[in-house]
Amino acid sequence: MRFRCHVFVCENQRPDADERGSCAARGGEAVRQAFKDELRRRGLKGEVRANGAGCLDACSDGPAVVIYPEGVWYGHVRVEDVAEIVEKHVIGGQPVERLRLVRLERGQP
Amino acid sequence: MRFRCHVFVCENQRPDADERGSCAARGGEAVRQAFKDELRRRGLKGEVRANGAGCLDACSDGPAVVIYPEGVWYGHVRVEDVAEIVEKHVIGGQPVERLRLVRLERGQP
Repeated sequence: MRFRCHVFVCENQRPDADERGSCAARGGEAVRQAFKDELRRRGLKGEVRANGAGCLDACSDGPAVVIYPEGVWYGHVRVEDVAEIVEKHVIGGQPVERLRLVRLERGQP
Repeated sequence: MRFRCHVFVCENQRPDADERGSCAARGGEAVRQAFKDELRRRGLKGEVRANGAGCLDACSDGPAVVIYPEGVWYGHVRVEDVAEIVEKHVIGGQPVERLRLVRLERGQP
């Protein structure tokens, strides 16, 4: 696998009037940048990658993050959560349960 | 897993003068839209998702596509290739070898 972990952060932007809100409005871009910074800081550049993504269809739980290949989803991710996700999940292999969108992972409404 | 396959299409845009070019300039957005259309046409909406992504670091092979959870990478993907990727890979489970970036998947330069 090219990247041991590939982190996608929703950066979808909706019009301000849209009642669903959007991950962009909730800070998705800053979260993506925080992942990039933290991965570099931990020496993981090249091995683990963080990218912005279009709408991941988890608007009400945004900013939403999905990490592959494991397919773990996180919601309401703040910049302050990023170091913990990198430490526990990316490095330690244990998802951060308090941020996890388990219902979404199971495809439940 | 929330999505059986999650297709990410690089839509990164670089300045016109950048000699690496970019997936946006090579048609990434049209490829992403073609995936969305084809997945809907094949009744896979909700089960398989296509999203645009920021720079996947495969600029010279763009438009680049990665499909998770399997971590298969494709390069130089054209709109005309999308139906084949959906038919053979997403539905049939067999990657389209002629478009595959095997060296990249192995992390080789």
